[in-house]
Amino acid sequence: MAQSFDRPITFPDIPGYQTLKVDLHMHTVFSDGSVWPDIRVREAVRDGLDAIAMTDHIEYQPHEADIPHPDRNRSYEIAVELAARLDSNLMVIRGSEITRSMPPGHSNAVFLDDVNPMIQDEPLDVFREAARQNAFTFWNHPMWLGQRKDGVAVLTDMHRDLIAQGLLQGIEVVNMHDYSAEALQIALDNDLTIIGTSDIHSLIQWEFEHDHNGHRPITLVFTTDRSQEGLHRALMAGRTVVWFRNMLVGRDEYLVPLIESSLTLESAAYAGERSVLEIVVHNASDVNYILRSESGYTFHQNSDVVMVKPNGNTTLHLKTLEQLEEVVIPFTVLNAVNAPDRHPVFVLDVAVN
Amino acid sequence: MAQSFDRPITFPDIPGYQTLKVDLHMHTVFSDGSVWPDIRVREAVRDGLDAIAMTDHIEYQPHEADIPHPDRNRSYEIAVELAARLDSNLMVIRGSEITRSMPPGHSNAVFLDDVNPMIQDEPLDVFREAARQNAFTFWNHPMWLGQRKDGVAVLTDMHRDLIAQGLLQGIEVVNMHDYSAEALQIALDNDLTIIGTSDIHSLIQWEFEHDHNGHRPITLVFTTDRSQEGLHRALMAGRTVVWFRNMLVGRDEYLVPLIESSLTLESAAYAGERSVLEIVVHNASDVNYILRSESGYTFHQNSDVVMVKPNGNTTLHLKTLEQLEEVVIPFTVLNAVNAPDRHPVFVLDVAVN
Amino acid sequence: MAQSFDRPITFPDIPGYQTLKVDLHMHTVFSDGSVWPDIRVREAVRDGLDAIAMTDHIEYQPHEADIPHPDRNRSYEIAVELAARLDSNLMVIRGSEITRSMPPGHSNAVFLDDVNPMIQDEPLDVFREAARQNAFTFWNHPMWLGQRKDGVAVLTDMHRDLIAQGLLQGIEVVNMHDYSAEALQIALDNDLTIIGTSDIHSLIQWEFEHDHNGHRPITLVFTTDRSQEGLHRALMAGRTVVWFRNMLVGRDEYLVPLIESSLTLESAAYAGERSVLEIVVHNASDVNYILRSESGYTFHQNSDVVMVKPNGNTTLHLKTLEQLEEVVIPFTVLNAVNAPDRHPVFVLDVAVN
Amino acid sequence: MAQSFDRPITFPDIPGYQTLKVDLHMHTVFSDGSVWPDIRVREAVRDGLDAIAMTDHIEYQPHEADIPHPDRNRSYEIAVELAARLDSNLMVIRGSEITRSMPPGHSNAVFLDDVNPMIQDEPLDVFREAARQNAFTFWNHPMWLGQRKDGVAVLTDMHRDLIAQGLLQGIEVVNMHDYSAEALQIALDNDLTIIGTSDIHSLIQWEFEHDHNGHRPITLVFTTDRSQEGLHRALMAGRTVVWFRNMLVGRDEYLVPLIESSLTLESAAYAGERSVLEIVVHNASDVNYILRSESGYTFHQNSDVVMVKPNGNTTLHLKTLEQLEEVVIPFTVLNAVNAPDRHPVFVLDVAVN
Repeated sequence: MAQSFDRPITFPDIPGYQTLKVDLHMHTVFSDGSVWPDIRVREAVRDGLDAIAMTDHIEYQPHEADIPHPDRNRSYEIAVELAARLDSNLMVIRGSEITRSMPPGHSNAVFLDDVNPMIQDEPLDVFREAARQNAFTFWNHPMWLGQRKDGVAVLTDMHRDLIAQGLLQGIEVVNMHDYSAEALQIALDNDLTIIGTSDIHSLIQWEFEHDHNGHRPITLVFTTDRSQEGLHRALMAGRTVVWFRNMLVGRDEYLVPLIESSLTLESAAYAGERSVLEIVVHNASDVNYILRSESGYTFHQNSDVVMVKPNGNTTLHLKTLEQLEEVVIPFTVLNAVNAPDRHPVFVLDVAVN
Repeated sequence: MAQSFDRPITFPDIPGYQTLKVDLHMHTVFSDGSVWPDIRVREAVRDGLDAIAMTDHIEYQPHEADIPHPDRNRSYEIAVELAARLDSNLMVIRGSEITRSMPPGHSNAVFLDDVNPMIQDEPLDVFREAARQNAFTFWNHPMWLGQRKDGVAVLTDMHRDLIAQGLLQGIEVVNMHDYSAEALQIALDNDLTIIGTSDIHSLIQWEFEHDHNGHRPITLVFTTDRSQEGLHRALMAGRTVVWFRNMLVGRDEYLVPLIESSLTLESAAYAGERSVLEIVVHNASDVNYILRSESGYTFHQNSDVVMVKPNGNTTLHLKTLEQLEEVVIPFTVLNAVNAPDRHPVFVLDVAVN
Repeated sequence: MAQSFDRPITFPDIPGYQTLKVDLHMHTVFSDGSVWPDIRVREAVRDGLDAIAMTDHIEYQPHEADIPHPDRNRSYEIAVELAARLDSNLMVIRGSEITRSMPPGHSNAVFLDDVNPMIQDEPLDVFREAARQNAFTFWNHPMWLGQRKDGVAVLTDMHRDLIAQGLLQGIEVVNMHDYSAEALQIALDNDLTIIGTSDIHSLIQWEFEHDHNGHRPITLVFTTDRSQEGLHRALMAGRTVVWFRNMLVGRDEYLVPLIESSLTLESAAYAGERSVLEIVVHNASDVNYILRSESGYTFHQNSDVVMVKPNGNTTLHLKTLEQLEEVVIPFTVLNAVNAPDRHPVFVLDVAVN
Repeated sequence: MAQSFDRPITFPDIPGYQTLKVDLHMHTVFSDGSVWPDIRVREAVRDGLDAIAMTDHIEYQPHEADIPHPDRNRSYEIAVELAARLDSNLMVIRGSEITRSMPPGHSNAVFLDDVNPMIQDEPLDVFREAARQNAFTFWNHPMWLGQRKDGVAVLTDMHRDLIAQGLLQGIEVVNMHDYSAEALQIALDNDLTIIGTSDIHSLIQWEFEHDHNGHRPITLVFTTDRSQEGLHRALMAGRTVVWFRNMLVGRDEYLVPLIESSLTLESAAYAGERSVLEIVVHNASDVNYILRSESGYTFHQNSDVVMVKPNGNTTLHLKTLEQLEEVVIPFTVLNAVNAPDRHPVFVLDVAVN
C-alpha cells in the first residue's frame, strides 16, 4: 500500500500534566499566506494537533488590494467556526503577528480578545495592548536572516525592556526550518518560554515534506487541563518542549519527564544462566532517540550509541557480567538539547523481571 | 525511500498532434475555493500540467464579506504572474464559471479577454458575452446531484438553443469524482467537446489522494502547437480525451491514436523452435490498461484479460501454434469508453523480429 | 515505514466449506531445488498457507553426487518435523513428482504413505503404486515449453487411459508463471480437479516478487474439515479454485460461491431524496476484482467496468432513477475464468437499508 | 511503487585502495545451513558484494545422514561454478569453519587450496594446516553466548599462542546481530584484523530484514587490486572496516579515509551579504552519519548533532559570524568506533566558493 499523507504527531502525557501539541504561528490570505483559514484547520486535524493560533500579520497586508482593511479577527473567526463544525477537538486561538523592523522585530501575541486594537503606530503600544488583553506574547524568529544577516539572535535593550515590563514572555527557538542555539540561551538567561512554530505560509505537506516523513515544528505544552485557559497558564509558566525535525529542545524540568514518559521499560530478563540482560524499551513518541550510554557496561549488539525507534519496542542487550536484580543506566540524549550543545541525561532504571 | 507527493501525469503525443494536459475548472478564494491562486499554479506544476484555467464563479461569491466585489480577473492575473515568475511552461487561461440554476446550470467560459463583462442578469446574455469574446464554453457537471437528484444528465431546450446558437461547445463528462455516461451520450449526439476537470476547491492532493496513487481528472487536448491559440482551436474542434481515475473517455478518432501511441511494440520474438511468441509491449502512459484479447489465440501466462502496467514494459506470451512472421491482435480496451458501456478496439500489429 | 515481506494470503470460507490455501508442488535439495526443506515450511507460514506438499522428483536427482540415493521421504520428514516444532497450523503432505518424458510428462502424487515404492521402471507402474497408496495424482504443467514447443496442453491416449483407469484425478491449469486455457478445457472435458501450484525451486520471494505485491499461485481447496483427510476428499471431489496473479480459475460451482463470499454488501442507502444508491461492497479477499456491470443502470462514478479493491470497502453509486427497495446487479467477473475466455457472473442482490 | 528487495551496498573507494565489500562467513546445506550454495551466490549478487567465502563447518555435520562425509570443498565448487556462469563480478573464496569448544572456539580459515586436509583431530593441527595452505584465519564470534554466558570476549592462553605462532590473524568484532567492544579491544591490543560477517544460515533477507532497510554485516576490505590475491594481502595487512547496522568499526587509519571519501564537499557559499555559510555535503555511502560538531560555531538549522543522509546531499548552514574564505569543522562521528566507546574525528575542510 502507498503511504498516507496523514501523520498524526504522537507524544505521551507526563506526570501531572497533559501534553498538548500546539502550533502558535501561521498565516492565511488575511495577511501573506496562500490559503483560506479552513485549510489551516484541516491541516492541524490531519497532524493530530490540539491547538493552533491564527497569527496573521497586523502591519503587513500584501493582499490589501483584494482584501481591503480586513477585520483582523477574520482568520480566527473563520477557523474557529470550521473547527466547531468538524466536531474536532482542535482548539483555535485568536492571535496576531506584530510585524516590525528590528528591534523588536516580529512577535506573536496569542489569546487575544480582539485583534483590531493591536493596530497601533508605536511598537510598544502594540505590546501594551497585548498585555492589556492578557495575551501570551513571544519574540518570533530572532535568528531570521531577513533581519539578521548573521542568523544570530541578539537581545537588544528594547527586548530587555519588554521583558522587564512583562510584555514579552516567550521566544521562538525554532521557526519553520531554523533552530537557534543563541535564542535558546536567551530563553534560559531571561526566563522566557521556549517556543517552536511552523510559521506556515503555503501548505504544511509541501513545506515539511510529509512524503519523506517530515512534520511541522510544534510546541509541546504541558497543561493541567485541556482548555485555552490551561494552555495560557502553561505557556506563561514556561511548561514547554519544542519538537523540530528529530530534535527536542527544552528545559530539563519538562524535557526529562517527557523523555521518561516516552521511553519506558517493557521488560528485562536474563535467559537461563546468561548474564546478558535483555531490556525491552517501549517508545511511545515520534522521536527516533539517539542515546549514548554512560553506564560503563557494554552492549551485546551496539556500541555506546544506541537508536530507539519511534512508536514501538527496541531491545537492548546489556552485558552485566553477572545476573543482577537491578541496573541503572544513564544515557545522554544526543538529539535533545537543554542548552546550546548540551544534552539531557535520561536514566533508565531497570528492575529485572 | 518514502513516496513523493509529486506525480507528473504522463501521456505521449499522437500522430499530427501534441498531447497537452489541461484542467479547465478550478476555484480560489476569489469565489468559494480555499486557496490563493498561487497554490493552483504550484499544484499544476507538480502535476506536470500544460495548462489550467482559472474559473471562479461569477455569481456565487461566498467570500464577499472579506473580498468585496472583486475584479473577476484577479485569480487569473495573480496566477499568470506567478507562472511566469516560476519559469514554468504552464499556460494559465482566463476563465469563469457561469453559475445558474438548472437550466442551464453551471458552465465554464475559458479564453476570455475580460471576465467582468460576464456579470449579467440574464443567463443568455452571459453566454452571448462569452461568445462575443470568442470563448470556449462548456456545460459543467450536468450530472451534479446538487441540481439533479437522479444524477442523470438531461439536455433541456435551453441547452439545445445554446448549442444551436453556437453558444455552447463542450460538456463535462467527468467532474471531480463523477463520470456521466448520459453526458457522454449528449456529447456524441450534439457534437460537443468531451471535457473532464478537477473542479478543485480545496487541495488537489487531499481531494484526489495522491498518497494512494490518485490524480486529478484532466482533459488531454490534441493541439498543433503549444499555445493558447492552439488549445482554443483544438477544444473548438473537439480534439480531446478525458483521463479520470484509470479510465479514458473520448471519441475513437482521438482515443484510438492515444492508445496506439501509449502502447507500442518493443520487441517480438520466438525462442528457438518454440511457437510461443514473446511480445514486449511498452506503455508510455499513466494508464494501467485492461485489455481483452479478441484474437482467438490464447496466452501462455494470461487469460484473455490482460493488464499492461503504466510507464514500463509488459511481456505477453502468445501461443501462435506455429512460428509466424506477423500477428494481428485486436484488443477491447475495457478501461476506455467511446460511448456509454462501449469500449474501443486497439489492434496490436506484431511484426516478429 | 518500509513494506514487510510477509503477505499472508487471505480468502474467506464459502457456505458449507472451509477454504484452505494449498501449494501442492515444490522442490528442495532432495531433487533439484535450492533449499533445505525447512525453508519451504517457513515460506508457507509467512504466506499464511494451510498445507504444502513436498514433491521432489523421483527420477530426476541432479544432486545425486552429494546426496546419493536418498530416501525419497526425507524432504517430507524434515518439513513435517519443523512444522510441528514451529507450532504452526501448517499441514505438510507427503508427495513426489513422477518425472517422465511426454507422454505422460510430469505428474504429482500427494498423500502418499511411502515415496520409495514409487521408484519404478515403467511409468504406468508408478501411477499404479500411487493409486495403491490412495494418492491424489495430477498432471503437472501440461503446457510446459520444455515438453511442448507450442505451449499447448494436449491430451494423449496415455492420459485418457490414466483417467479411465482412475489413475489421474487432477491437472495443473496454472504452474509457476504459466496459465493454460487448453489445460482448463481438458479439466472440464475430463472431470479433472483444477490445480495451480508454485513449483518453486529457488525462493518464493524472489520468484514471485513479493516486493511488487506478488504471490505464489495456490489452489484454494474447499473442505468440510481442516485435516489431511478432508483435503484429500476435497481434491478427489474437485472442490478447488486456483488463485494466480490477479486471476481466479475454477468451476462455477466453487468459483461463484467464492466470489459471493468475497464480495458482500456492507450497506446500501439513498441520501435524502436523491435516487443515486450508495452501495458499499466489502471485499474479504486478496483479489482486485475487475467487474463489468450488466444491469442496464449506469454508475455515477464509473463506467460499466468497476474495480473492487482487495481487503476493504469500495463504494459504488448506482443511478436507479427512482428510489427502489431492492436492486439486482449482475456483474461479469473479468478476472475470473470458468472456461477458456469465459467469465463467471456474480449477482449482487442489494437490499436498500 | 513497492520497494525492491535488492539493496546493493554502496561505499566509495579510498585514496590508494579499492573498497571491496566482503562477507567471509556463511553456511549451506553442506554443514548446518538451509540452502544450496547457489542461493548464497545470488544473495551476494543482489547485495552488490565483491566477494564471499564459503565456510561450512568442518567438524559439525548435522546433515550427515543425508549428505554423508562430504568433500569439504563442495559448497565452494558449486558456488564458484555458478558465479562464473552468472557472469557476475563476484569472487568466491574457498574457506571453512574450524568448529571447536572454547578455547579456541570457532575460527574461519579462508583462501584455502583444499578444505579436506583441515579434518584433523587436534585443534592446533587444523590451524597449522590452514597456515600451511597460506590461509587467512580469524577467530569467530568470541562473544558468542553459546560459548560465553556473559557475552564477553576473553583472550585465552591458547589464543595468545595461536597469535604468537602466526596462526591467527583476525577476529570477528561483529557476527550476525552481535557487536563486541571487548573483541575490538582484543583486535587493537594484538594487532588482529577487524572482521564483521553475516554467519548466515537461513536467508539473508529474512535474517537482516531487507524489508526494513536492513543489510547483512560485511567487512570493507581496502585492496590494491580486485583479486583474491589482493584481498588476501589486504586482510593479512589489517586493511578493513566493518559495516554493521548503521555503524562503522575500524582503525582510524582506514576508518577516517573511508569517512572522508564518503563525505565530500559539494559546494559552500554565502548568499549575498549574509554570513551563514551554506555547505552542501555529498554522502557517497549507505551510512546515515550521526555527527557532533566540535567547531564552536553554531548551525542555523541544527544543534551540534547533525545527521547526514546516505547516498545524497545534505545542506548545513553554519553561522560563521563574518564571511570567511575557509572554515575547518571537526566532527565526532558518533556512529563509528575506533575503540570501545571511542569515536573518530572527521574534519571537513570547507573552502568557500
